Amino acid sequence: MQDTGSGEDRLIARHFRPLATHPGALNLIDDVAVVSVPEGHDLVLKTDAIIGGVHCFPDDPAGAVARKALRVNLSDLAAKGATPLGFLLSLALPSDIGDGWLEPFAAALGEDAEGFGCPLFGGDTDRTPGPLTVAISAFGTVPHGTTVLRSGAKPGDRLVVTGTIGDAALGLVLRHDPQAATRWGLDDVMRNHLLRRYLIPEPRNVIAEALRRSAHGGMDISDGLAGDLAKMCRASQVTATVEVARVPVSDAARRALVAEPRLIDTILTGGDDYEVLASVPEHNVARLTAAAAAAGITITEIGTIVGGAANARFVGPDGRELTFVSPSFSHF
Amino acid sequence: MQDTGSGEDRLIARHFRPLATHPGALNLIDDVAVVSVPEGHDLVLKTDAIIGGVHCFPDDPAGAVARKALRVNLSDLAAKGATPLGFLLSLALPSDIGDGWLEPFAAALGEDAEGFGCPLFGGDTDRTPGPLTVAISAFGTVPHGTTVLRSGAKPGDRLVVTGTIGDAALGLVLRHDPQAATRWGLDDVMRNHLLRRYLIPEPRNVIAEALRRSAHGGMDISDGLAGDLAKMCRASQVTATVEVARVPVSDAARRALVAEPRLIDTILTGGDDYEVLASVPEHNVARLTAAAAAAGITITEIGTIVGGAANARFVGPDGRELTFVSPSFSHF
Repeated sequence: MQDTGSGEDRLIARHFRPLATHPGALNLIDDVAVVSVPEGHDLVLKTDAIIGGVHCFPDDPAGAVARKALRVNLSDLAAKGATPLGFLLSLALPSDIGDGWLEPFAAALGEDAEGFGCPLFGGDTDRTPGPLTVAISAFGTVPHGTTVLRSGAKPGDRLVVTGTIGDAALGLVLRHDPQAATRWGLDDVMRNHLLRRYLIPEPRNVIAEALRRSAHGGMDISDGLAGDLAKMCRASQVTATVEVARVPVSDAARRALVAEPRLIDTILTGGDDYEVLASVPEHNVARLTAAAAAAGITITEIGTIVGGAANARFVGPDGRELTFVSPSFSHF
Repeated sequence: MQDTGSGEDRLIARHFRPLATHPGALNLIDDVAVVSVPEGHDLVLKTDAIIGGVHCFPDDPAGAVARKALRVNLSDLAAKGATPLGFLLSLALPSDIGDGWLEPFAAALGEDAEGFGCPLFGGDTDRTPGPLTVAISAFGTVPHGTTVLRSGAKPGDRLVVTGTIGDAALGLVLRHDPQAATRWGLDDVMRNHLLRRYLIPEPRNVIAEALRRSAHGGMDISDGLAGDLAKMCRASQVTATVEVARVPVSDAARRALVAEPRLIDTILTGGDDYEVLASVPEHNVARLTAAAAAAGITITEIGTIVGGAANARFVGPDGRELTFVSPSFSHF
């Protein structure tokens, strides 16, 4: 019996084999990938999924879904100081997804895999009666014992973040309520900036090495600054105090905030930032800031870490502590 | 703001933290796991998903779903000669799944993780409007360069399989058509054997090392012996000839075959066997068979490998070649 392969084999060969550029992917001919971790290095592992209707909209472009699915995982590697090694892809496809969708999906995934130096190792493709589900496991390496941990924050550290906070959360509001752009007085550039920040994260992998050399502790901000900082404080058993006025926001977010001051809650708790939150000893802040600036990324000091009970405090310009309805995004 | 964690945090702490016994899992407090691969070893990576209504029935016990989800991945590690290192779990849960389901799911997953020496490294939990989706990525190690590859079969090799073939495919028929047990003349023990073989695979990890020392090439049989052998022949560019009469079947399958001879098609192409198919040089067959027997696993020689075009031939007792409607299970 001569066999030319099943439909799944053909789908993989057509769309995903071109992405399997790493020799360890075995050209996607085997069931597994086989890779080596450089001697003296630890393997950093992360898995995160994108589910249609939950983490992305049904009408999001296929390429944007692909980039988001990989980048939410790359963002974790960045915050941990890890260099990307590669990723596994588990795809569950609704019956209405065919080549017309898979082609731009795979093309964008391939571009990001190349751009971030994180090749496809292998995967699994199934049909599902449910929504599109893209589960990616991403792998990185760090010199042994140098992973930047959530539990590493120390009293006396400065708290810093990359980029700007809250853009994606506002972008999500705009997806649900396009009229908000008018209420907030946004021009097209500002509106598109926020929408884009929700649609396609910009993980900060270019500063991974600098973080590893400078930060005591860190994590990426995916579920909202307030909730994620609370997690870091619990893991490190420290108290963090954030001066809300110092939290960096984009021009678009500032314009929206002026129009609707209560949006500060959305900005600080809304999630999908994919910026880095790091706890850095004071004497390293300048070094980290310079290294990040050289890579085109802004580092902003937003607060300090002290000892004591696990506690994340957000202090307003009036000196009063903010409270949030729900500090962290959660599906549960 | 004192924060005791989101609903997802509580779910993870309650159900999955007890499984995170490996120090690299960081007690599930971080976004990532950090593990080391033994020096001189390669990392073997595999991902496979279980989707409700596709790979399991909505009324399958939670514990059986957990075991199947991990074991289909462990089966690949076994066939590749890899020693399990650990796994990542990506869970998409429908809204009707709560603690009552998660408790037995996590308990069974923990039992298998311990039993197979494959601890939970970390994971991701989301709600989905679709069916339950359990995507697992499993990792193993092999001494550098010793992975048993699909492309390793060589002319002159003997073709062997572990255990019995076709039980799970017949078990699936019984799930859809319980009356078939009567038609096939099965007693309760036989019927339950087939149902159990579909519900919970028995991956052959105990012979992984023996395979690595004895086999030229191999893979696990998950999509049917006929289709999977065809894949091995394509990857290795060899011709395999299987004597159908030598393919090992259970007492239950034999009884069914006597009643309905056309079931040979189901047995050879139905999938879900999770046995090992290996291409072994003649002088190693006895050694592999003895090592497997010591671990309670039967090895059966079913055919031979010769050079020539990629071709998987199944020859009946009458010397005629069988043809199959669809040699390999595929969702596409």
